Amino acid sequence: MLDEATREHITDGAGPGVRDTDGDLRPELIEQVANAVEASDAARLKALFADLHAADQSDLLEVLAPDDQPRLIELLGPVFDFTALTELDETVRTRIVEALETHTLVEGMRELDSDDAVYILEDLDKADQAEILDQLPELDRAALSRSLDYPEETAGRRMQTEFVAVPAFWSVGRTIDHLRETEHLPERFYEVFVVDPLYRLKGAVALDVVLRSRPGVTIGEILSDEWHQVRDTDDQEDVARLFERYNWVSAPVVDDTGRLVGVITVDDIVDVIAEEADEDLKALGGVKADEELSDSVWYIAKSRFSWLFLNLLTAMLASVVIGLFAGEIEKMVALAVLMPIVASQGGNAGTQTMTVAVRALATRELGHGNAMRIVVREAAAGLINGLAFAVIMGAVAVAWFGIPDLGLVIGLAMVIVLVAAALGGILIPLALHRLGADPAVSSGPFVTTVTDVVGFCAFLGIAALWFGKS
Amino acid sequence: MLDEATREHITDGAGPGVRDTDGDLRPELIEQVANAVEASDAARLKALFADLHAADQSDLLEVLAPDDQPRLIELLGPVFDFTALTELDETVRTRIVEALETHTLVEGMRELDSDDAVYILEDLDKADQAEILDQLPELDRAALSRSLDYPEETAGRRMQTEFVAVPAFWSVGRTIDHLRETEHLPERFYEVFVVDPLYRLKGAVALDVVLRSRPGVTIGEILSDEWHQVRDTDDQEDVARLFERYNWVSAPVVDDTGRLVGVITVDDIVDVIAEEADEDLKALGGVKADEELSDSVWYIAKSRFSWLFLNLLTAMLASVVIGLFAGEIEKMVALAVLMPIVASQGGNAGTQTMTVAVRALATRELGHGNAMRIVVREAAAGLINGLAFAVIMGAVAVAWFGIPDLGLVIGLAMVIVLVAAALGGILIPLALHRLGADPAVSSGPFVTTVTDVVGFCAFLGIAALWFGKS
Repeated sequence: MLDEATREHITDGAGPGVRDTDGDLRPELIEQVANAVEASDAARLKALFADLHAADQSDLLEVLAPDDQPRLIELLGPVFDFTALTELDETVRTRIVEALETHTLVEGMRELDSDDAVYILEDLDKADQAEILDQLPELDRAALSRSLDYPEETAGRRMQTEFVAVPAFWSVGRTIDHLRETEHLPERFYEVFVVDPLYRLKGAVALDVVLRSRPGVTIGEILSDEWHQVRDTDDQEDVARLFERYNWVSAPVVDDTGRLVGVITVDDIVDVIAEEADEDLKALGGVKADEELSDSVWYIAKSRFSWLFLNLLTAMLASVVIGLFAGEIEKMVALAVLMPIVASQGGNAGTQTMTVAVRALATRELGHGNAMRIVVREAAAGLINGLAFAVIMGAVAVAWFGIPDLGLVIGLAMVIVLVAAALGGILIPLALHRLGADPAVSSGPFVTTVTDVVGFCAFLGIAALWFGKS
Repeated sequence: MLDEATREHITDGAGPGVRDTDGDLRPELIEQVANAVEASDAARLKALFADLHAADQSDLLEVLAPDDQPRLIELLGPVFDFTALTELDETVRTRIVEALETHTLVEGMRELDSDDAVYILEDLDKADQAEILDQLPELDRAALSRSLDYPEETAGRRMQTEFVAVPAFWSVGRTIDHLRETEHLPERFYEVFVVDPLYRLKGAVALDVVLRSRPGVTIGEILSDEWHQVRDTDDQEDVARLFERYNWVSAPVVDDTGRLVGVITVDDIVDVIAEEADEDLKALGGVKADEELSDSVWYIAKSRFSWLFLNLLTAMLASVVIGLFAGEIEKMVALAVLMPIVASQGGNAGTQTMTVAVRALATRELGHGNAMRIVVREAAAGLINGLAFAVIMGAVAVAWFGIPDLGLVIGLAMVIVLVAAALGGILIPLALHRLGADPAVSSGPFVTTVTDVVGFCAFLGIAALWFGKS
């Protein structure tokens, strides 16, 4: 049996008593922190925060009232880990950073790895950035400025400029001595990079390989034959895809001449992957990618309005189609009762196909090689379900309204709309992707337009032809 | 300037000439492989595959015709990296594994870390598992059997049982000697774990810390104060959440007595995170989580049918509501023309709120602490947009049909349906989450029912009251 003291220590490795079993922050702790901020009790706050991981500091900070957030940071002084700011929603982070004293911010930034510092700085306007950079040591300033010069969402923006690089002729022993003697190493690293005298990247060695090798062996001899690199200008999503595919833990970043300029680690990539999936999911639901839980009501309403407005135009187009058949509806009100069913089945089937297509495009599973096969597969699945629902709805319509021909009409319309939904659901995202647009953002309204217009047209049009004749 | 030969080597670190600039496999290479399989040219295939990363081997395997896939593996013999099988869709992997000769499979599995071996074995039925396990060395068999005994999607299933553990009293020098002399180390590792004589976990040291420390220092002295662990029975999604929050690269796994039984590394966690986001996205789009691009038409059609059938019931409920107002529609066909607009705006607004709510619940951003605030925020945003669209649609309706009162009726209905959509969009996922159901999977039909029924009832009901009086 594990003694209680040890177990307590083990279980709470991530910070004693911070969270309950669900992983939520303990309400008592939140209250203690809030009270201590209220009372400006710096000593109490320091005691509460001293052993906390940056992620826990961040979550505690986030639940405080907005005005208390910068106050907490000022009160904590050096106990506050500025890495915590990188874990916040952008809206919250920007607000806090703008409210902090410049000297607090500068002191905090000194302790950060460059990627985290850039992450905080990039939200600020140029003037505020310059004010902070001016007060940092020359070396840090140069590295941060260079990272900020890269476009947003590139490897250059996400990389940290602290890394370990040695020449290939060094022995394992000399490399280990070097690591023992160097003061300014990155906070955490997983590979030793190998460079030539012009700092051009020649390879990489994982730390476990260094540790396993005899001291007399040179680094050049143990270079991995599976090593890799990314370009500073590469898009962060492309880099994330490589990490995911090849199971990397870190990757060196080189510039256009092959010089080693930084390193990207998997913890940043995990955030990129989560963010990207999040953006696709929101886009498909008609929500802007940057919407956060901390946004104001007004901002939310405005940001959702544009999608709803676009949808309104789609819906009005469908109404115009219905209007064309107003005469038929007046003669047979059953058409008005049943028509939303046809459009709704089409809309849902279209969304199913579109969801699969958008996700497969994002993860690169869908490409030139298999597009045709997937289009055929979707159309065939649409036809099968179209026939199935034609039978079901045909029977329901006949039973409900007692008009046998109405069953045939809705059945035929159901087959047409489900095949159209399948084709629209796959061809529209594919076309948008080829045109360079993001299919997750723009497919929805087009697919709905197709399914609505085809749905109402097919059902009401066939009804008009059929019952018009008789 | 980088000389061409070096650049070539660098760019192709992940496998020479495998992919084009878009990251897609080169068509020429695919053709060469397909032809060589056709001709049973093992030597050619071995030359093509010898230097490829498992991920590239996997992608090449996946694009071949189904019958050629197991044939390729048999032809490659020891050149095929069985890790590649873990990167395939489950459907494809199961089909291939079942088609392979048992001895090929057994030979391939010997080379794998235990987590990858379990990943492949877990898809097989018990009899096939036993047949393969029987032919593995005693030690491997015991470790794999134990992992397979854990429930699916737990840390115990995902962990690898190869790790490095030393006692706290060992010096850094002795530890490094141990690593140099031990034959069977994990393929890659990032931490040295510290255990007591009963193998209970006492801490962990990152490899860079080992490398930076003087040889005479004991491991106990450099133990991280920020170390962590997970339980073997923990759900893999909870573990993924911890990796994401605390930026871990690996985590030791302990059993109920605190004994170290395995380690989970971040590359497996990246897959879990991507998978989880994928599941939520698909669920919201009405697609089953396990649907894959490699599934057959028949399977796809069947798997989508159930969602569409549920949606049909929802749509029929809406039709029943419309049927109640058939008299009003006969008198004023404009109602039939406009009613889908009200329902559609409600449906889309409901989906927006639901998307935000489902994602926030999944990432634990939405909890007891802020649920009330978010409900109020959504309702307020719904009211604002309800008023906006009331004005727009009111004006449109009046201009279109020349009936002033119709503008008032549709405006009022629009406000009601958008507030109902906001409340339904947030309260339904929250309620499902509290009841222990997955809100991503089940919210959609409930939210659509609310918006459809409220939309048609509000519009047609108000119209009936208003025009019935006059």
